[in-house]
Amino acid sequence: MQKKIKDIGELGLIRKLSQAISTDKSVIKGIGDDAAVIKFTANKYLLFKTDMVVEGEHFTRKMPARLIGRKALARNISDIAAMGGIPTYAVISLGIPPLVKATFVMELFQGINEIAKKFHINIVGGDTSKASKTFISIALLGWVEKSKLVLRSTARKGDLIFVTGNLGASFKTGKHLNFTPRIKESRFLVGKYKPTAMIDISDGLVLDLHHILEASRCGAFIYEEFIPRAPKAGLHNALYDGEDYELLFTLPGTKAARLIRNLRKSRHKFPISCIGELVDKKCGLIFIDSKYRLSKLAPRGFTHF
Amino acid sequence: MQKKIKDIGELGLIRKLSQAISTDKSVIKGIGDDAAVIKFTANKYLLFKTDMVVEGEHFTRKMPARLIGRKALARNISDIAAMGGIPTYAVISLGIPPLVKATFVMELFQGINEIAKKFHINIVGGDTSKASKTFISIALLGWVEKSKLVLRSTARKGDLIFVTGNLGASFKTGKHLNFTPRIKESRFLVGKYKPTAMIDISDGLVLDLHHILEASRCGAFIYEEFIPRAPKAGLHNALYDGEDYELLFTLPGTKAARLIRNLRKSRHKFPISCIGELVDKKCGLIFIDSKYRLSKLAPRGFTHF
Repeated sequence: MQKKIKDIGELGLIRKLSQAISTDKSVIKGIGDDAAVIKFTANKYLLFKTDMVVEGEHFTRKMPARLIGRKALARNISDIAAMGGIPTYAVISLGIPPLVKATFVMELFQGINEIAKKFHINIVGGDTSKASKTFISIALLGWVEKSKLVLRSTARKGDLIFVTGNLGASFKTGKHLNFTPRIKESRFLVGKYKPTAMIDISDGLVLDLHHILEASRCGAFIYEEFIPRAPKAGLHNALYDGEDYELLFTLPGTKAARLIRNLRKSRHKFPISCIGELVDKKCGLIFIDSKYRLSKLAPRGFTHF
Repeated sequence: MQKKIKDIGELGLIRKLSQAISTDKSVIKGIGDDAAVIKFTANKYLLFKTDMVVEGEHFTRKMPARLIGRKALARNISDIAAMGGIPTYAVISLGIPPLVKATFVMELFQGINEIAKKFHINIVGGDTSKASKTFISIALLGWVEKSKLVLRSTARKGDLIFVTGNLGASFKTGKHLNFTPRIKESRFLVGKYKPTAMIDISDGLVLDLHHILEASRCGAFIYEEFIPRAPKAGLHNALYDGEDYELLFTLPGTKAARLIRNLRKSRHKFPISCIGELVDKKCGLIFIDSKYRLSKLAPRGFTHF
């Protein structure tokens, strides 16, 4: 019997497709980070990203259309933030069932437009088509100074692990629909501390940390007591719920110490927590609970298919 | 009763959405041409375009998957050609029903990859999601020398109208699935003649010519005897069938005369036909048949919804 997509799964599919691709020297980083990194000018890289939300998968038509549209673009902006960059231009593909109300589409678009304006993003093109379910696919361009680019793959053993904000209540509170992408925080971090690696937490802390660990060939210890839980969020939510859209990043010793000193002096205007450290790859991801018991965390979190 | 999307139509929808958008000075041309034109370097513009194909609308799963994938990217390339540019980087969003065969998706992707390689396009990112029907949305970047950019909106009264190749048999012959985007021809034209306006014929000759007429505020005469019909294509097919993906462009008198001289001497390696001329806007689009009878052609062709 022939294999179906549900049998090979999303990661399996992406892996298979990625293997078929080759890119030239102008591509600094292709598939495998939050956004592609492309040669641009003498001191800047171009960032390029696509992301979509599909009815029934990422949203239902009962959610406010404005927030669905907002989220569709905000997710992309969050990926540009994870590279240390600034978003610039977007193009939008809209698939729409013919019986959808025109006001739904207008509100959806209003949400996209609002967050585009907030982040000074120009919407420069689009495409519409009839479809059986609503979907929004957005491609976003951005740029980053060469000196400020942060990849997933450049963390090192001994680096400390940090996270912005607090985790685990995104679905309870609706934050997953109305979060603010961490562009400001990212630009502050790449300017003041220049993390060795960074990712946005979209698939959940454990899975996204695994993405950094895999790309950087490291293991990690993370500590229950240091993981910043949102009010009413259980440990499991903080570890595995996706869509917090906070930044997860790593800093080497001296810089980490400086950040921690500044945090103690309340010098930063947004919360950052140190949640652990990078260790040898063979350790995997080790979770240390409040009673100092160790357990190994497998790469789990939200995946499609 | 609230209006549905099918009531306002694709053009109505795009018009409504476009009105909500404002762009800054870095955007030379936003929505309303084949691709967006953005400030880039001292002598180049960036081109940015998104286009999608949706199962049931643009293809059925009975068509060869490789050709569906190929077409999804080729349509975008054709739009870059219409601006006089060269395509460079693409990102791909794939919506896939979980019960689709993995080989279908692999072949689809193979088709995308083949034409990407042919045109030296780097695929630098993607996104996949479960969906009720298969869809492929591709965003494509490219560039064009400032001196070679061709818009829809810059044709002038008195310009002659030209078209590459022949028209009307795309659906009969399968050309709509395996056409070669006219990048080579476009680059030749912008280098040697610099058209005043250009568009690719995706919605049909009449509708795409109307796009130029509307953007350039002109009318046109076109002549039945000069319209290059593909073998077995009826006049109606040549006028209204979409998806020929040939180039429709305009040239002022002297350049037009030079092109026609060179065509007579068979100096060009691909067919070009002069099909008419631009006239005052108030004339609209006038069709002159083989017996010199005039009729007015309304903007009709392929539209969604």
